[in-house]
Amino acid sequence: MPTGVVPDLDALMQSLPDDSLVVEPDRMANYRWDRAHDPDAGMPLAVVRATCTEDVQAAVRFASAHGIPVVTRGAGTGLSGGSSAVDGCIVVSTERMRAIEVDPNTRTATVGPGLMNGEVKAAVAEHGLWYPPDPSSFEICSIGGNVATNAGGLCCAKYGVTTDYVLGMTVVLADGTAVELGGPRLKDVAGLSLTKLFVGSEGTLGIITRVVLRLLPAPRIPATLVATFGTLEAACTAVLAITRRMRPSMLEFMDKASINAVEDMTRMGLDRDAEALLVMQSDEPTGFAAVEIAAMAKFCEASGATEVFSTDDPDEGEAFVTARRIAIPAIERRGSLLLEDVGVPVPRLGDLVMGIATISRAHDVEIAVIAHAADGNTHPLIVFDPMDAEQKSRAQAAYGEVMELAVGLGGTITGEHGVGRLKKPWLGLYLGDDVMALNRRIKNALDPDGILNPGCVL
Amino acid sequence: MPTGVVPDLDALMQSLPDDSLVVEPDRMANYRWDRAHDPDAGMPLAVVRATCTEDVQAAVRFASAHGIPVVTRGAGTGLSGGSSAVDGCIVVSTERMRAIEVDPNTRTATVGPGLMNGEVKAAVAEHGLWYPPDPSSFEICSIGGNVATNAGGLCCAKYGVTTDYVLGMTVVLADGTAVELGGPRLKDVAGLSLTKLFVGSEGTLGIITRVVLRLLPAPRIPATLVATFGTLEAACTAVLAITRRMRPSMLEFMDKASINAVEDMTRMGLDRDAEALLVMQSDEPTGFAAVEIAAMAKFCEASGATEVFSTDDPDEGEAFVTARRIAIPAIERRGSLLLEDVGVPVPRLGDLVMGIATISRAHDVEIAVIAHAADGNTHPLIVFDPMDAEQKSRAQAAYGEVMELAVGLGGTITGEHGVGRLKKPWLGLYLGDDVMALNRRIKNALDPDGILNPGCVL
Ligand SMILES: Cc1cc2nc3c(=O)[nH]c(=O)nc-3n(C[C@H](O)[C@H](O)[C@H](O)COP(=O)(O)OP(=O)(O)OC[C@H]3O[C@@H](n4cnc5c(N)ncnc54)[C@H](O)[C@@H]3O)c2cc1C
Ligand SMILES: Cc1cc2nc3c(=O)[nH]c(=O)nc-3n(C[C@H](O)[C@H](O)[C@H](O)COP(=O)(O)OP(=O)(O)OC[C@H]3O[C@@H](n4cnc5c(N)ncnc54)[C@H](O)[C@@H]3O)c2cc1C
Repeated sequence: MPTGVVPDLDALMQSLPDDSLVVEPDRMANYRWDRAHDPDAGMPLAVVRATCTEDVQAAVRFASAHGIPVVTRGAGTGLSGGSSAVDGCIVVSTERMRAIEVDPNTRTATVGPGLMNGEVKAAVAEHGLWYPPDPSSFEICSIGGNVATNAGGLCCAKYGVTTDYVLGMTVVLADGTAVELGGPRLKDVAGLSLTKLFVGSEGTLGIITRVVLRLLPAPRIPATLVATFGTLEAACTAVLAITRRMRPSMLEFMDKASINAVEDMTRMGLDRDAEALLVMQSDEPTGFAAVEIAAMAKFCEASGATEVFSTDDPDEGEAFVTARRIAIPAIERRGSLLLEDVGVPVPRLGDLVMGIATISRAHDVEIAVIAHAADGNTHPLIVFDPMDAEQKSRAQAAYGEVMELAVGLGGTITGEHGVGRLKKPWLGLYLGDDVMALNRRIKNALDPDGILNPGCVL
Repeated sequence: MPTGVVPDLDALMQSLPDDSLVVEPDRMANYRWDRAHDPDAGMPLAVVRATCTEDVQAAVRFASAHGIPVVTRGAGTGLSGGSSAVDGCIVVSTERMRAIEVDPNTRTATVGPGLMNGEVKAAVAEHGLWYPPDPSSFEICSIGGNVATNAGGLCCAKYGVTTDYVLGMTVVLADGTAVELGGPRLKDVAGLSLTKLFVGSEGTLGIITRVVLRLLPAPRIPATLVATFGTLEAACTAVLAITRRMRPSMLEFMDKASINAVEDMTRMGLDRDAEALLVMQSDEPTGFAAVEIAAMAKFCEASGATEVFSTDDPDEGEAFVTARRIAIPAIERRGSLLLEDVGVPVPRLGDLVMGIATISRAHDVEIAVIAHAADGNTHPLIVFDPMDAEQKSRAQAAYGEVMELAVGLGGTITGEHGVGRLKKPWLGLYLGDDVMALNRRIKNALDPDGILNPGCVL
């Protein structure tokens, strides 16, 4: 866009339903930040609250004609600044695209991107079906955002990540064309694997306006095992002993700082002295779950667990899972957070967790660690006082070092939250020049003018 | 390549290990055709029997410098002409790239592309692990070919397709650069989903020289159910009744022509009068498998099965699975084949199968049908006498009509075999202009000179 020339929004407004275009700065403020609270988030030119694919096309065509950046926004729960607004951009919000159609015969659901993950789960459950991916934020994040970030969650070690459940989609490309990819077929190899390319593309290649999801039969009620440990090493040893022999339906990790933050919030009686806590579940059929739980208990004890507790009661089990899920908000009460998302091969989990403790001491900043342990994906949460500039810069130094540590251990800088704007400076370190160049080639091929989510990922 | 100028192969030979370059026409004949037996297959300039990524790079750099086409060849069992040679091309054969490293701690295997699928299964089984994807050709097809075609098989309805098991790879790009994508991590969202883009790309985007595969714990021994039906409708009704309620570990379909072809070969006592036969398995834990088998038997009976037979004996069960697996070679004895691979959403399976019978009658050609029924993926096998030009042209007309039928039913022209060269004329019909353009944009971005498998897919 030539500097200073503000395009006339009337034409855009006329191609949209009433109340779709937001231009008032105070209303637009709700669309500027995601959960990374990027202080550099810009001020949009306008927000388009799309109701359908055609609305999105109208917005993108207008943006393309005027060279205006387009930032797609789901529910704004992203943790890497992927849906932070850019100055003068059009934010396309999917919040009103909430249709869902469940087909038990093909065991698929066709879903608008704005529906919450939890709403998808609930709608398909009415048909005795299950959509497994379960980010901790499932009640507040959109399915479109999940697809755009290839979201993970707690069930991944056994049930995989979002991409494993995406069979097809409608995408609006950078020139406003809408294409339909895939569909309600479990197998389809006609042409390149484009559906999978758009999964995890963080709004940089196109805007997803409809998703076809693969569903499973309703899950069984899981049995739960909780174990506490006197050292981080012991807990990580238990994780590896378990994952190399079985596939629990959940295996989550919390360190002492996380346990205490959650206990401050819930007073549920967690052991404040434990250095680590594991929450494990088995959803094998009756009888077999008991065997799996007993085996996990044995491995925990053999690795030096201080206490091991199991329950078949679903509510009691769910209380521990909730404790794990609320760890992020619980730790958020302690200050501002730099939220990490590094992942390593499971055998390096111990090295990662211990290395993070070293970084925490070296920079004298609190780093609480929670992890989807069974797949080596950790969330070190770096706590700092935003008013203390010096502490903040120590926190930022630690943030970078955690990523460097993970890469050094054969790991990734982001397991499930995405690169967004926050992790962009480290992407090259991780991928190397050649893979970066390959990413850019794809980006340039699909968005030659760079209007889709500029500054995100690449 | 400027016409008539044959590049000097000495430079290439010098950058390769001994015995890597094949130029003798009689030896090259082994590298010209895949199982589609394309009569238009060309004569290569040379075959490079690569031993490592660097050999592949040398071949591609040479080809790129001289504008020579490169056709990658796994085991040549492809059914769509994807590895047919092109005149004057370099065939890169992966047959000597057979390394495998199994890591039970991360439950992954790092594999050379030339290893057979069955060899991968066997190597990981030694560690109590399992690589699920199981094309019927598993003993004779390479893992690289499986990844390049996103191969399916019999276990897909419950265990997914090849892409669900690919965590990372090394790929040699069109300019000879080798890139490493992904790795032994279950979650990794740093950058675009490039690993998944190369899965199913049929040698048109790059040459895969190493694959990191996700493994599962060893499978349980399945129980088997076999049912025969007096009509195609009844069998398809049973399929839908089953798939909408449960996830058998196998649900395969054979029609009368296939049953008879297999019976001719095996004399195992299949019911030659049955119009359809279903082979089903359950690999649920002991006790639960019996329940699942009983439920499937009930649905078969309710749909009008003429006979239902179940067995817990693994050898007896495997005999029926083998019967299904050898259907293609058995039918091959009856003449030349045009091998279809159309897939539809499961509720349309009956319409597809019945429509194929109509096409068979209309063109007076035999079409035997086998299907991975639980995911709607069928293989209509059109039999013809290659010496009878008129019959051959009727067979070809039927081949096209079957694809048009499938597309009309909301299906795909290829569920697992790939587009290759044979199905290219129908790809546009299925994908439409916009998605075709999108495919081309990706292809042009990664292979601007079009040297990788020209004429395949796009
Ligand atoms: C308390 C808490 C816990 C969390 N736990 C997890 C967890 O366990 N696992 C996990 O993976 N994540 C987790 N997250 C992160 C976040 O919820 C996920 O990344 C989620 O997928 C984002 O969805 P959203 O709708 O909020 O997307 P947004 O934040 O709005 O957007 C995320 C990215 O996707 C793009 N985008 C959104 N919609 C579309 C679309 N329709 N088309 C194209 N691009 C689009 C945006 O441009 C942006 O780049 C957590 C977040 C919080 C706050
Ligand atoms: C009897 C029989 C039964 C079959 N059953 C099934 C089945 O159940 N399911 C199924 O999916 N298929 C089946 N097939 C088809 C075939 O076996 C698969 O497509 C298989 O994946 C091909 O592997 P290949 O090593 O033979 O590859 P090839 O035929 O050599 O090549 C196939 C394609 O992949 C490309 N390619 C091969 N290796 C690489 C590489 N390393 N890098 C980049 N590109 C590469 C080639 O260029 C070509 O386009 C069957 C075939 C036969 C003969």
